Amino acid sequence: MDAYARLKELGLRLPEVPEPRGMFQPVTQVGNLVYLSGQGSYSGDTWVTGKVGAITTLEEAQQGAKLCMLNLLAVLEGYLGDLNRVKRPVKLLGFVNAAPDFTQQPAVINGASQLLLDLFGENGRHARSAIGVGSLPMNITCEIEAIFEITD
Amino acid sequence: MDAYARLKELGLRLPEVPEPRGMFQPVTQVGNLVYLSGQGSYSGDTWVTGKVGAITTLEEAQQGAKLCMLNLLAVLEGYLGDLNRVKRPVKLLGFVNAAPDFTQQPAVINGASQLLLDLFGENGRHARSAIGVGSLPMNITCEIEAIFEITD
Amino acid sequence: MDAYARLKELGLRLPEVPEPRGMFQPVTQVGNLVYLSGQGSYSGDTWVTGKVGAITTLEEAQQGAKLCMLNLLAVLEGYLGDLNRVKRPVKLLGFVNAAPDFTQQPAVINGASQLLLDLFGENGRHARSAIGVGSLPMNITCEIEAIFEITD
Repeated sequence: MDAYARLKELGLRLPEVPEPRGMFQPVTQVGNLVYLSGQGSYSGDTWVTGKVGAITTLEEAQQGAKLCMLNLLAVLEGYLGDLNRVKRPVKLLGFVNAAPDFTQQPAVINGASQLLLDLFGENGRHARSAIGVGSLPMNITCEIEAIFEITD
Repeated sequence: MDAYARLKELGLRLPEVPEPRGMFQPVTQVGNLVYLSGQGSYSGDTWVTGKVGAITTLEEAQQGAKLCMLNLLAVLEGYLGDLNRVKRPVKLLGFVNAAPDFTQQPAVINGASQLLLDLFGENGRHARSAIGVGSLPMNITCEIEAIFEITD
Repeated sequence: MDAYARLKELGLRLPEVPEPRGMFQPVTQVGNLVYLSGQGSYSGDTWVTGKVGAITTLEEAQQGAKLCMLNLLAVLEGYLGDLNRVKRPVKLLGFVNAAPDFTQQPAVINGASQLLLDLFGENGRHARSAIGVGSLPMNITCEIEAIFEITD
């Protein structure tokens, strides 16, 4: 199914590609794999910040994870020129800025995984790890890096 | 050497494949590489939880890392149908739920690496990073993700 | 450009290859990709330790990230025999041992990324994530793992 039609059905728009906030580029490619630099839980004026389990709620953090994935998809589209060249996500690594006693990291990162399943269907299935970290850049609540497989 | 004979010599049995506790699948494959989602330090009724250096000991955490690896091997066997199709582990990333002043993350993850060396001999050698994280799902003590190379 | 001439211009020398402090090897290769185990912020008698944002400054941490990269390059040279066989860095994952309210992880890991750009020019561009972790082995301030592409 066409990725853009599906995005429209989901009522979603890809954000602007975020400018890298450091000396890196958002994507590198080796063969048909693309390695995507970690993207954070913000877009335009919408920032999801703070430690989940302390001042940020699970629901806010899930929205943050969805923002991370929208940013990753925006990077992919900017790089590939056409989001339909995405074959599938291979692997996510989700970092959750969490209080030391927080235990629901998988539920947070589901906010990103759900979007992949909604957008790509069966092809959206992926491997994943979700961990709690002590701090993140700009005090964002989530950061997610990813490996995707693309078509030629 | 046959992986099952070796497991038996080591007095080990593979656990049931853990159900993913989130919207992901335990493995994806690209060519001859398999990406394994992070597996945690529990199996059946045996749970290794808590922060090492605070309420959990180094020895307990090492047993936890071994449980992570047994779970990863169970996933591999379930996916491949035959553990002898494992060519070698390529890379581990070990997350240790640790007190802020804990400094022995490599010793913890050795509990997983030792099992790979015991099971696969020279072919069990692998690259690895071991870090201390602020929190993990369900308060488990360790989580390990991995990339393995397999034969056709 | 010759990597050794460029190192000399930069006034840098590769350190001794660090001995792995655990049951792993510093590098594994799959095809033309090499996976490098995490290297820490120390070299010989120079150790950068402590949590940045608490007792360690941003500038010290950046120097620590540079040490991590020098160690990674030393591992590459030891493995490849010739640093000119490096085609390019593909992906870094930078772990910063940080106070819970520290927010400048990208600026820390720039200490490593800058060295890649200085050494390899355009070919030194890479994808990257930079996160704050709760603790690291031996209380080092930074640890960086990497994937590089090499020539035959």
